[in-house]
Amino acid sequence: MKNVEKWLPALVWLRTYNKTDVSADVLASLVVTIMLIPQSLAYAMLAGLPLSMGLYASILPLIAYAVFGSSRTLAVGPVAVVSMMTGTAAASFAIPGSEEYVAVAILLSVISGLFLILLGGLKLGFFANLLSHPVISGFITASAIVIAISQMKHILGISIEGHALMEVIPALFMQITTAHLPTFTLGVTSITVLLFLRFYLATVLIRLGFAKQTASLLSKTGPVIVVILSTLIVSFFALDTIGIGVVGSVPTGFPSLQLPDLSYDQVMLLLPSAALISIVGFVESVSVAQSFAAKQRQSINPNQELIGLGCANIASSLSSGFPVTGGFSRSVVSFDAGAKTPMTGVFSAILILMALTFFTSLFYFLPKAVLSATIIVAVLSLVDLKAIKDVWGYSKHDSVAMIGTIMAVLFYGVEVGITTGVGLSILMFLWHTSHPHIAVVGQVTGTEHFRNVERFNVEVHESILTLRVDENLYFANARVMEDKVAALVAEKPNVTDVILMCTAINMIDASALDSLEAISDRLQSANIKLHLSEVKGPVMDKLKESDLIKHLSGNVYLTQYQAVQSILNNTHPT
Amino acid sequence: MKNVEKWLPALVWLRTYNKTDVSADVLASLVVTIMLIPQSLAYAMLAGLPLSMGLYASILPLIAYAVFGSSRTLAVGPVAVVSMMTGTAAASFAIPGSEEYVAVAILLSVISGLFLILLGGLKLGFFANLLSHPVISGFITASAIVIAISQMKHILGISIEGHALMEVIPALFMQITTAHLPTFTLGVTSITVLLFLRFYLATVLIRLGFAKQTASLLSKTGPVIVVILSTLIVSFFALDTIGIGVVGSVPTGFPSLQLPDLSYDQVMLLLPSAALISIVGFVESVSVAQSFAAKQRQSINPNQELIGLGCANIASSLSSGFPVTGGFSRSVVSFDAGAKTPMTGVFSAILILMALTFFTSLFYFLPKAVLSATIIVAVLSLVDLKAIKDVWGYSKHDSVAMIGTIMAVLFYGVEVGITTGVGLSILMFLWHTSHPHIAVVGQVTGTEHFRNVERFNVEVHESILTLRVDENLYFANARVMEDKVAALVAEKPNVTDVILMCTAINMIDASALDSLEAISDRLQSANIKLHLSEVKGPVMDKLKESDLIKHLSGNVYLTQYQAVQSILNNTHPT
Repeated sequence: MKNVEKWLPALVWLRTYNKTDVSADVLASLVVTIMLIPQSLAYAMLAGLPLSMGLYASILPLIAYAVFGSSRTLAVGPVAVVSMMTGTAAASFAIPGSEEYVAVAILLSVISGLFLILLGGLKLGFFANLLSHPVISGFITASAIVIAISQMKHILGISIEGHALMEVIPALFMQITTAHLPTFTLGVTSITVLLFLRFYLATVLIRLGFAKQTASLLSKTGPVIVVILSTLIVSFFALDTIGIGVVGSVPTGFPSLQLPDLSYDQVMLLLPSAALISIVGFVESVSVAQSFAAKQRQSINPNQELIGLGCANIASSLSSGFPVTGGFSRSVVSFDAGAKTPMTGVFSAILILMALTFFTSLFYFLPKAVLSATIIVAVLSLVDLKAIKDVWGYSKHDSVAMIGTIMAVLFYGVEVGITTGVGLSILMFLWHTSHPHIAVVGQVTGTEHFRNVERFNVEVHESILTLRVDENLYFANARVMEDKVAALVAEKPNVTDVILMCTAINMIDASALDSLEAISDRLQSANIKLHLSEVKGPVMDKLKESDLIKHLSGNVYLTQYQAVQSILNNTHPT
Repeated sequence: MKNVEKWLPALVWLRTYNKTDVSADVLASLVVTIMLIPQSLAYAMLAGLPLSMGLYASILPLIAYAVFGSSRTLAVGPVAVVSMMTGTAAASFAIPGSEEYVAVAILLSVISGLFLILLGGLKLGFFANLLSHPVISGFITASAIVIAISQMKHILGISIEGHALMEVIPALFMQITTAHLPTFTLGVTSITVLLFLRFYLATVLIRLGFAKQTASLLSKTGPVIVVILSTLIVSFFALDTIGIGVVGSVPTGFPSLQLPDLSYDQVMLLLPSAALISIVGFVESVSVAQSFAAKQRQSINPNQELIGLGCANIASSLSSGFPVTGGFSRSVVSFDAGAKTPMTGVFSAILILMALTFFTSLFYFLPKAVLSATIIVAVLSLVDLKAIKDVWGYSKHDSVAMIGTIMAVLFYGVEVGITTGVGLSILMFLWHTSHPHIAVVGQVTGTEHFRNVERFNVEVHESILTLRVDENLYFANARVMEDKVAALVAEKPNVTDVILMCTAINMIDASALDSLEAISDRLQSANIKLHLSEVKGPVMDKLKESDLIKHLSGNVYLTQYQAVQSILNNTHPT
């Protein structure tokens, strides 16, 4: 039973699910659905897909996640960055707007789903950890800028394909004279109103006497107000006839369920893009889920999260949807609206299904420029310039990875951006650990302590050279250590004993082991002994399995003090 | 002057160069040259190039390295693995045997040279450190097997293109019936004699009364004996007329010096292959150089080594040669033969130039099967199965990288092999450090020491949870730590304070910093404080630059004991 519960987290909360929970969840789902409908349409538009697909992606995935996901609060569905990544990936395999383009988006969803489940099943959530925080932050900031700029075409009422800034920006400048003024006016007004609602509505409402939480919740429904108002205005004045782009007819009813045909070749072709979409989606989602879980002293299981999101994506593709993940803003709204369990997702799914069956005609006059305005305002809140400044102040290595990611996203697109980021952060980490702090140490007079000769006034014996390497010894710094020892010994002709003080070493890999053997042999050929001191337990356990200890020209000492004493006594016998 | 010497290491040893040195170096150069001539021809054959190119690659590079290299002993020239890599790379851009093929090999040499100088100039020798020892060892073992098998065609007297085992092995089986019996007999006899000479000649000579060093030196000239004898036999019996392949006419004289034309496109096309060739060559070379330097209490400068090898490669391309690097066997012979300074290389170059000008006709009857036999026997000594066993015993992670490299070289060739190896060893290191040892610790009764609760009988307070993470905190394990803290806190409902004991932490990157802030915030939202204890100096210096300390819900304590005392006193005020 315990095992089944591990794979089906829903069984745990369903056991205590009661009436109070039902009413709380139904109420929350109403609020969430009102937000989700325009968001779904907008993100489908952002992905360059038929708008109905946004709604399809907001039904089954919510139910699948409720059953398999481990977060009690996370609201899944289409989100901005993942939608843009889907559009970018699909555009490199098919012509935007074509049937193949739609098919590729659906395939990306199922392949992402399978990939996430695979990672979860093999407990390889580790791969997501390769995205460092500065890289994610830079990636999201840059993606938000790309999204906002790519949406300008809807605000200007012109048509430009793709998201790559190198193409979009020149095209915007060239076509700016052909902008459609009424569309532009509507778009800019919407942006202004949305910004006002986002930043001031809560304050105004609080002043009007609303409770803080209610005010904050209402202010988050700002986009809905703008969507409804603008739809009414366009409809009333028939503004679509003067050229304002509207959503138009959305097909009614749920699509027939079918798993897309998958060939091995297709999977291999789309896998890299699907994997990037999956990992970015997972990383965004898991940090949101973790924040909420902590508030309730719950914990989420990252591998189960992978499976939950995987199932959500497969469910999305089953119903002709595109890749989904857990979104921050909707999760906040759901939480604030009092959602108790993932059943909120199930209720939202039912509500969206109802909307899709009965109310699609209501979306007919919804202006595309307004959808774009909601996207622009939503993504601009993702731009985090303070993070760039903070990372710069804290770590230059992390800054290189972050700025590299931002530049790569802006100039070469999201996929190059994310891979550049991962590559740079790994390289910077290797670089950092491959240039370890190596101190020559001496004895603090009258104590058994040993400290850096450059910082402290310590005793040093001419015949003994003691080095302390403050880093794991592994392939990227093994040769650095060889060079350093060789250089120091070449400088000091009277040295007869070298001690490596291992207090800060948590691991020694096979390369470093070879290097230690090489150092020992080389020193021995110059009649110098190599000793080790203060080796940590787990490291010593490993060394005992190797040949190093046998071949070591010197000894292994428990403490640095013992090492020095013993060497001095042997060299100058009393 | 000091600065000029740094860039021109020759200035240092030239200052004290005297008559004794001259005679020692001339003698050593004679021995080296006798070995180098057949080796140069053999490795040019291995690379699929005109045999004269082997000699071209053994003149100017030796002089260039003598001037710019930092090792006093290293003998540069064509070596087996690099020659095969050159052949493999050239074959993927041009038809073997064509003029373009030769041109590509020369281009690879100049691009490698420029790449090495660039790395040296920018002090980026670091990149070579990304090749872990197990990966290099596996790469060389697998390459040796590939080389040996690819040379079987010359032993069988059949013709097969390329080195890829997937093609060579089936072709060998299919053509085995068409093998040329006299060639096969000659080849197998040569291999047998070479193996005998390698393993027993020294013993026999010692028994005959030779000094050990002389015996060892003579045994290394075994290939020369076989080459001379077989050439005499083929010439005397005119065996070339019955179909035994011979070297034939080698063009006399030195080629006119010219730098190959380089276009940007060509450089970009060949750069990946040239970079791999360079790095493999550098890594092989630098470890040889370092071993010799240590014997004489000298040290080599890896960045100057890059420049020295870079110049050698550019010099090689200038004279229509192919990529070269420092070789182990010739360096040993040179050292054993009493070489005092890099002038040995200059004398060898002069001797080879003389051979090229006056004695090429002597090589006419040299059988190709014998050259192949020398290659096979030479490379089989590179196969190091014990290393595989040792690494397996020491570290499973390193074994994965090593075996992955071997498999990739055998099945997909050298370039895929080396990149797979680098990728795997980085991934394994990240995997290892991303699964740190995290211990819950408690106080050893009556002391100020804190130990793992699972290994020691220690005191734990119900309200305090102390974790010790034995690893640097960085992006690949930041989320692991978040999960672990969340899971432990969820298990222990009475915890009010979490202490992170930082004794083993040498760095905290920006991701881990974010994670610590997130952990602090999340714990605070559950009314739990996060404290740090025993933070190392340099780590604390960095943390002070960040916002963490300000936002931390708890305090930073110098020692773990202080932390516990202070928390207990606050919680239960006396």
